[in-house]
Amino acid sequence: MKMIGKQLNNVREKKPAVHCITNYVTANDCANAVLALGGSPVMADSIEDVEFITPKCAALCINLGTLKNASLTAMLKAGKIANTLGKPVVLDPTGAGASLFRLESARLLLKEIEFAAIRGNVSEIKALCGIGCEATGVDAEKERGDSINDLLMLAKGLSEKTNAVVIITGEVDIIVEKNRFYTAFGGSSLMSRITGAGCMLTSLVATFMGANAERLDACFAAVSMMSVCGKCAEESLSEQEGTMTFKNKLIDKIFRISSDELERGAEYEAGNFELVCGN
Amino acid sequence: MKMIGKQLNNVREKKPAVHCITNYVTANDCANAVLALGGSPVMADSIEDVEFITPKCAALCINLGTLKNASLTAMLKAGKIANTLGKPVVLDPTGAGASLFRLESARLLLKEIEFAAIRGNVSEIKALCGIGCEATGVDAEKERGDSINDLLMLAKGLSEKTNAVVIITGEVDIIVEKNRFYTAFGGSSLMSRITGAGCMLTSLVATFMGANAERLDACFAAVSMMSVCGKCAEESLSEQEGTMTFKNKLIDKIFRISSDELERGAEYEAGNFELVCGN
Amino acid sequence: MKMIGKQLNNVREKKPAVHCITNYVTANDCANAVLALGGSPVMADSIEDVEFITPKCAALCINLGTLKNASLTAMLKAGKIANTLGKPVVLDPTGAGASLFRLESARLLLKEIEFAAIRGNVSEIKALCGIGCEATGVDAEKERGDSINDLLMLAKGLSEKTNAVVIITGEVDIIVEKNRFYTAFGGSSLMSRITGAGCMLTSLVATFMGANAERLDACFAAVSMMSVCGKCAEESLSEQEGTMTFKNKLIDKIFRISSDELERGAEYEAGNFELVCGN
Repeated sequence: MKMIGKQLNNVREKKPAVHCITNYVTANDCANAVLALGGSPVMADSIEDVEFITPKCAALCINLGTLKNASLTAMLKAGKIANTLGKPVVLDPTGAGASLFRLESARLLLKEIEFAAIRGNVSEIKALCGIGCEATGVDAEKERGDSINDLLMLAKGLSEKTNAVVIITGEVDIIVEKNRFYTAFGGSSLMSRITGAGCMLTSLVATFMGANAERLDACFAAVSMMSVCGKCAEESLSEQEGTMTFKNKLIDKIFRISSDELERGAEYEAGNFELVCGN
Repeated sequence: MKMIGKQLNNVREKKPAVHCITNYVTANDCANAVLALGGSPVMADSIEDVEFITPKCAALCINLGTLKNASLTAMLKAGKIANTLGKPVVLDPTGAGASLFRLESARLLLKEIEFAAIRGNVSEIKALCGIGCEATGVDAEKERGDSINDLLMLAKGLSEKTNAVVIITGEVDIIVEKNRFYTAFGGSSLMSRITGAGCMLTSLVATFMGANAERLDACFAAVSMMSVCGKCAEESLSEQEGTMTFKNKLIDKIFRISSDELERGAEYEAGNFELVCGN
Repeated sequence: MKMIGKQLNNVREKKPAVHCITNYVTANDCANAVLALGGSPVMADSIEDVEFITPKCAALCINLGTLKNASLTAMLKAGKIANTLGKPVVLDPTGAGASLFRLESARLLLKEIEFAAIRGNVSEIKALCGIGCEATGVDAEKERGDSINDLLMLAKGLSEKTNAVVIITGEVDIIVEKNRFYTAFGGSSLMSRITGAGCMLTSLVATFMGANAERLDACFAAVSMMSVCGKCAEESLSEQEGTMTFKNKLIDKIFRISSDELERGAEYEAGNFELVCGN
């Protein structure tokens, strides 16, 4: 058994509880994705819940979709508790590229909380890095003009600044922890035609991290899970089936996939920045 | 290529971003319906988000389901920004026939904001017009006793008062802009057995309007899309399949349908009130 | 026609409106489950809505998932109105075993409102009874060590204290009204691998109660509906299909099932405590 498969087995054995403070648009899909993977989602965004829920969970997942000031307060409290207890905290800065309110909230969270991982699309990650861009929607299209190398350097910069693993998802997925990285391929173009593909992935990142100590590999395992299952879901669509069936098949596959199948399906390159940049 | 097909092609080419301030019950379905159609939904109901999100979007969709005072404030702000910038604003007065809070909120919105379109069932539209009725649920049944002519006159009255295209959905759908109208047939009786059919349609109206200047035709195209895809979804159900599969197939079909198929499937009559009422 | 089938027929004939004050994670599934059963869900959690909505509905369903103080206030008001009007009120103490905020809120509701039924997993029901346990997630696993007899006595105690029918769901479902009870078998182990199985059941309990006066039997009918449809959904899954397809098939089956099929499928024992405990 190689690394990703072992990470998956750990999730299925440990069944980590994952505290999710997230948006109402994709909360159902995120909870079902965590359950399909083998974790136990606890969806609780009231500040009154935080002191009871966060300590009982193995990881915390914070998502800025449909952010309210009240939930931001709960996020801050939950994040500090998780930091104190040494539990991994994962950030999905949904819409940080489209709304200054979201961006400033993300920055406040980054200032107050130590994140184990941050996952966003390129617009969101650029926004966190202070690089303006023209994003409109939450589900940003691939920004033309950024090479994989550009994205790796962007992620590296944010990883070094925050000590988090940084994941930039897009046509190619980038997973960077300081000097080490993965680039992951495969997946499905239909991911951008459903709502919540990014949110689900971030939930899976938190679930993998809740059961696995090796942070970069946990993130890579989550990205691979979405890519392999997304590709499989798309390939199994009939000509009549569309995006909702795709979403259902994606989560179905997360539930069904074996460790071996995940291992075999993952398409990636691993590297470190000495090799890429220091030649 | 005729009119509806052209409207659909425009959506798929322009990929309009649609700002949705909506309820948590059907937000996921609405976002997926907009994506399936070819638009880009931005789900954001915090007043802090509005000033950043509304100007970046091509249309605004306001839905009163699970209304809160906080989101009402965001709706008012977003609506005024959209009006100033000349972007179409669409209203779904969910539950206005069942709750005075929702009705008064709808009236406040109608007073402060110029809507490009209003879509409701007959109970909701009657409530907006100050006509009491006995609606209980949000998904009102067809009210017996109203002829198509009655509904046309009801919609005409509200359209003249508000300058909006008015859509009354039911067994027959009515789309009226002052003196012009469509009546649309087809669809599926299962629409009333899922939550969110109305909300999804209103989101599609906003998406069509975000990519097409001709308001009445954009509304008619959205209604036709739901009718044609709903009928197709119902017809493809096996005897074991039920309402959830219907919903999935409906959105799948919105994703898959071609302009030609939409054109061919639409069942409607177009008219104007000189011909109907002025004889 | 026997009892459960008759209860189902009553729902389909009366189409009871059910006021749901519930969480945003599973609200869509709950609304679709109520619609599939034949009821009419009214999802409204604003205190401003309550005075208009509750009186128009046949039953009230209160669910503590993603509880906020604002919705707690709405629950209290709605519950009192329903009590005054003699409408059944059903409680789902989601997460009461995991968060003191939820537990105290549940206790406040139990103090202020007379419930017709309470449905929870064993952790939640134990928490309401003041028995600590080690629950983490909202979707608690079966607690090993509790015999069916232990669960029956637990439910009996809460039923006597609250005058409500008490339902404890798990591998075996327990339905108790003071001295009478059912134990229900069957169902599907996949229920614990989707979010909202419990919430949906509680919504179905409220729907059955909205159309049927006999409380214990209405609760038993709802539990049987979930068990029979869950078993059927699992059995019809192909090897590629997983938890999302299971959820869709479950709701599809609630929509399709005949009274006879429900009667035939229900696996249960009925009893009373004189026979069990008084020997």
